[in-house]
Amino acid sequence: MAPIRIAVLGASGYTGADLVRLALTHPHIEIAALSANAKAGLTMAEVWPHFAPYPDLPRLTLAEEVDWAGVDAVFGCLPHAASAALLATLEGPRIVDLSADFRLKDAGTYAEWYGGAHPAPALLPQAVYGLTEYARDALPGARLVACPGCYPTAVLLAVLPLVEAGLIDPARVSVNALSGVSGAGRGLKEANLFAEVAEAVHPYAIGAHRHMPEIEQEIGLRAGTDVRISFTPHLVPMNRGELVTIAVETRGTVADLRAALQARYTDEPFVHLLPEGVAPSTRMVRGSNHAVLNVFADRLPGRALVIAAIDNLVKGSSGQAIQNLNLMFGLPETAGLTQAPLFP
Amino acid sequence: MAPIRIAVLGASGYTGADLVRLALTHPHIEIAALSANAKAGLTMAEVWPHFAPYPDLPRLTLAEEVDWAGVDAVFGCLPHAASAALLATLEGPRIVDLSADFRLKDAGTYAEWYGGAHPAPALLPQAVYGLTEYARDALPGARLVACPGCYPTAVLLAVLPLVEAGLIDPARVSVNALSGVSGAGRGLKEANLFAEVAEAVHPYAIGAHRHMPEIEQEIGLRAGTDVRISFTPHLVPMNRGELVTIAVETRGTVADLRAALQARYTDEPFVHLLPEGVAPSTRMVRGSNHAVLNVFADRLPGRALVIAAIDNLVKGSSGQAIQNLNLMFGLPETAGLTQAPLFP
Amino acid sequence: MAPIRIAVLGASGYTGADLVRLALTHPHIEIAALSANAKAGLTMAEVWPHFAPYPDLPRLTLAEEVDWAGVDAVFGCLPHAASAALLATLEGPRIVDLSADFRLKDAGTYAEWYGGAHPAPALLPQAVYGLTEYARDALPGARLVACPGCYPTAVLLAVLPLVEAGLIDPARVSVNALSGVSGAGRGLKEANLFAEVAEAVHPYAIGAHRHMPEIEQEIGLRAGTDVRISFTPHLVPMNRGELVTIAVETRGTVADLRAALQARYTDEPFVHLLPEGVAPSTRMVRGSNHAVLNVFADRLPGRALVIAAIDNLVKGSSGQAIQNLNLMFGLPETAGLTQAPLFP
Amino acid sequence: MAPIRIAVLGASGYTGADLVRLALTHPHIEIAALSANAKAGLTMAEVWPHFAPYPDLPRLTLAEEVDWAGVDAVFGCLPHAASAALLATLEGPRIVDLSADFRLKDAGTYAEWYGGAHPAPALLPQAVYGLTEYARDALPGARLVACPGCYPTAVLLAVLPLVEAGLIDPARVSVNALSGVSGAGRGLKEANLFAEVAEAVHPYAIGAHRHMPEIEQEIGLRAGTDVRISFTPHLVPMNRGELVTIAVETRGTVADLRAALQARYTDEPFVHLLPEGVAPSTRMVRGSNHAVLNVFADRLPGRALVIAAIDNLVKGSSGQAIQNLNLMFGLPETAGLTQAPLFP
Repeated sequence: MAPIRIAVLGASGYTGADLVRLALTHPHIEIAALSANAKAGLTMAEVWPHFAPYPDLPRLTLAEEVDWAGVDAVFGCLPHAASAALLATLEGPRIVDLSADFRLKDAGTYAEWYGGAHPAPALLPQAVYGLTEYARDALPGARLVACPGCYPTAVLLAVLPLVEAGLIDPARVSVNALSGVSGAGRGLKEANLFAEVAEAVHPYAIGAHRHMPEIEQEIGLRAGTDVRISFTPHLVPMNRGELVTIAVETRGTVADLRAALQARYTDEPFVHLLPEGVAPSTRMVRGSNHAVLNVFADRLPGRALVIAAIDNLVKGSSGQAIQNLNLMFGLPETAGLTQAPLFP
Repeated sequence: MAPIRIAVLGASGYTGADLVRLALTHPHIEIAALSANAKAGLTMAEVWPHFAPYPDLPRLTLAEEVDWAGVDAVFGCLPHAASAALLATLEGPRIVDLSADFRLKDAGTYAEWYGGAHPAPALLPQAVYGLTEYARDALPGARLVACPGCYPTAVLLAVLPLVEAGLIDPARVSVNALSGVSGAGRGLKEANLFAEVAEAVHPYAIGAHRHMPEIEQEIGLRAGTDVRISFTPHLVPMNRGELVTIAVETRGTVADLRAALQARYTDEPFVHLLPEGVAPSTRMVRGSNHAVLNVFADRLPGRALVIAAIDNLVKGSSGQAIQNLNLMFGLPETAGLTQAPLFP
Repeated sequence: MAPIRIAVLGASGYTGADLVRLALTHPHIEIAALSANAKAGLTMAEVWPHFAPYPDLPRLTLAEEVDWAGVDAVFGCLPHAASAALLATLEGPRIVDLSADFRLKDAGTYAEWYGGAHPAPALLPQAVYGLTEYARDALPGARLVACPGCYPTAVLLAVLPLVEAGLIDPARVSVNALSGVSGAGRGLKEANLFAEVAEAVHPYAIGAHRHMPEIEQEIGLRAGTDVRISFTPHLVPMNRGELVTIAVETRGTVADLRAALQARYTDEPFVHLLPEGVAPSTRMVRGSNHAVLNVFADRLPGRALVIAAIDNLVKGSSGQAIQNLNLMFGLPETAGLTQAPLFP
Repeated sequence: MAPIRIAVLGASGYTGADLVRLALTHPHIEIAALSANAKAGLTMAEVWPHFAPYPDLPRLTLAEEVDWAGVDAVFGCLPHAASAALLATLEGPRIVDLSADFRLKDAGTYAEWYGGAHPAPALLPQAVYGLTEYARDALPGARLVACPGCYPTAVLLAVLPLVEAGLIDPARVSVNALSGVSGAGRGLKEANLFAEVAEAVHPYAIGAHRHMPEIEQEIGLRAGTDVRISFTPHLVPMNRGELVTIAVETRGTVADLRAALQARYTDEPFVHLLPEGVAPSTRMVRGSNHAVLNVFADRLPGRALVIAAIDNLVKGSSGQAIQNLNLMFGLPETAGLTQAPLFP
């Protein structure tokens, strides 16, 4: 079988780099082009420590210099707005976008949360929301797939089966989230310096995180109504990993909720309901495309806690992007994603 | 003024060690005795790296070997049950207990949560619950003070003014908590090894943490009714620090809640309402006796988020114990507690 | 091709677990048996967080319960002495031992450093010292391969070509080493608790580390004379990774030394001389079987610095063990070891 | 006694902030002015998390706006070159400079290592090299004190007594050094992001670190000859702390070297020779002005290892600066510096 020739736009960011890491050992992918902006001209080994053993990776070029004739699929790892602006100009390759640009169906919501008119609203209708486990029917025919944000991936995997089963009140979903620092990207911000982050924890973007409308959209779609959620992310001193602790209002028991998750995910290669009483941990998934879930009783009556953990850069970003590519191109869904988690 | 001669029971644990750290520079404390069990006979410099520069600290002895005639006050840093059993035998010194043994007013509740009959129920009525800012009247005359747990300290400082002002529903308090590892103590557990904790985060003791009844007792006292809370702690890869993110149901605005906190804490030396919009962080208090608080709007209607951060070993434990001692003995409340937080 | 059926003795330790991690995705390995001692009877998912997504791994059994008829190769991940005692009883499978027991050719030296008579001295002559890049001729016919220690792997990869080329004084090799905590194992020691290790660094086993005689043996073999080395390891607050900074006395220039390394490693899949001036970092190899090297001028005349980095659990242990297995069984040397480093 | 009114130039950097932290509880210091450049106009609480509990600290101003009439002493925490340029314009206050500008006696050496002519060479002769324990005679009369770099502080405390006693070869001092990240400052560099530093270690500035000439100057002064040293620093994932492992050539025994250190430091409040065999660790000094030292036998004949640990921001910078101020102004040497180390 001819390999899928891919281009990674924005290979100088953490998301792009993790895509390249996974693509390097994918049996059906050939890395055709890697783009960057400020770092165009450098090798990946010059830009990234972990590519030091790979001096032969394609050199970073400007996106404009990519030869699209030799590209079957493009991964967009650019900042929002920039991503849509550039991807809208491409005609040949199929697109897996990891930015926020094609996640929201409604251009008005996009404008409200991302502070500007959508750069390519005409493309929105064709974009598939690529939460893989919920998009399998649409992916094979898709030309443009929008990968979910990292937090939405974890939250939606945990609650969508419960919403679909009518087990929880979709209007009272309350999420506390913890994330490693790589989610903030490689940009130079004082807040992301080692000495600022280590030995500390704090919440951020309280009540204002841009992943909220995306979660609301997907829950609302299944609930058949507009919903709002509560979402409070916290920055934790670790590189990778994301854990969401979700309080839900329910008439069901823990066993009911677990049964719904079990029914939904029993055959999934990457989504795992843990045995009763086992708490999800980011240690369970580090560096892998796995997600782990579980449900616990809450001490407040009428509530339960649904908890999920993923690696924000893999299932929360680049791994899910490759999982989507696999289905778009008819490859085995797990191709290139079989690495076991790295622990310790 | 003659110094207060103290004994620290359990100086081989993190809590006891932090007490000694603070006592070392307290202007009115003299360290008379330090006890340990397995490590009796060793010097503090042999047991602790950070006391290497202090070879002249009293050697660790068994508690039975302490000469109580030379002790004005004892700090109990022993495990629960062991603490009450030993402290009940003391007649002379005034007692500041940092264990859980004298926090719950009801011996039945104690038995339910701590798995055994209370070792000294006769002492319970005289024990003062030493959340300092709420115990100032009782402390000068107290013989036995029970220092609150670390989580209860953070949670109660954040919500008690709101409960007292009738601003929140005391029956719907939902706490997500994050803690550094020192809270788990220096005992040898696989779960506390560096390689298990670093680069990871997970919830623990879900719905079953022993700090819950203590929080419920104190909220219930002010609310005039029995309450239950939701409480989910998470272990974060850092040494010190605790942050609680509390969802409350309220008819008040953020401004109302902030005003109640401001009114309550405006003259407090250690409790600080942050400026509007500034998120509490454990970086703000590391190594110090300070607590920082703030209130944020929640996206779910009728809710707000109250957030607090402390150093679990200082305001959450040894620092508050010394703050209590200061008031018990008529010393300035801030004596020995003026260290500014250590950052980075 | 029929898969190689392996048993991992000591799968409850970090080394054994990393072997299982790598074996899980090895195209020619089938995991036939996993042994443990105290944790026999548990599943790998109960013992290890990162195997939570793999509930179907073989359950841990006592070593005595392994059915050796179904095992082609055994990986020994047991403590020293216990390893040789057990492996000496096996007749069928070929053996890759990761303990220290078969590294030293001289049973007297073993007794001196490991504090007791060698449990199976009769096996020493047949044991191949499995520093793969230097053992390729011997591996295909070997029945018993002793994998080098983690520090020796890094040091020897860095200096053996220089010793062989006569470029450095083998009697004046001075190593400063830095290691992550996983090298200390999963045993319960106060010194390995998170709160003891985080935010700190210190040397240990100064002048007394058991990896010294092994390095001396291999340098001495090439130098044709007995040698002693200086070796000072330090514990660094990270999970994985090892970096050695080696001061050597030399009449050669940096270019000479680099040329010798380049000549030796130019075709190696896992050993990489970095471009001139690029400092090795453990970030370059985390989770992978790669080693990176470089040479720098020293300010003291007649000296140079040779620096190497590996992942102590992979190239320093389980990865190299699999690399050795591949060559023993005629498989491609890189089979199962193609994962790119994980960063960040 | 009237307090010493201080100004801190560069209070927006880690060094300046740690000076303010210590000054806050110094019994004889009054903070009169705090300067910054880009952050002028902000409060310290806006610039620093740990000053959140101190809203009443002086607001940051431009250095030009400081009212020097109200300042008795100025702490210069500015980058090199900028520091000398500004300090040379001051006439009134006595100066404790923490930059590199007044450490080297020779303007030519300065130009060679710092890449430009010295901004104020006329001031060099009067500058006292403020390694406190070696500068006590000069400090009371000094107008300008140059605080040593962090690495030089640790190295010189460890080796100067041995050089002075003629016990080691001053021309063969070889230093391996480990430092936390705060030493790199709060500037925005990709290399200092959390995700780049965590879980990794690497050497930097190999053979080229600017602290080398300063160490060479001070050793050379005592040895009566020009010397060169070997110095290789490594970046460790921790906030604070510095450890130097120094190989020395000696005809003395470990006991001889220990005796020389003991004799030199026995009455020092901040410099501690550890008991025989106890390895220095940065955990022993975190957040404090202490230094810990020890000597170990090396396996190579004719060598020994001298090891020292300090907190780079305290004894290596701001703490030593205050120690110097204390002596300049006739205060007790330990005033404001009595904090015990923070552990864990």
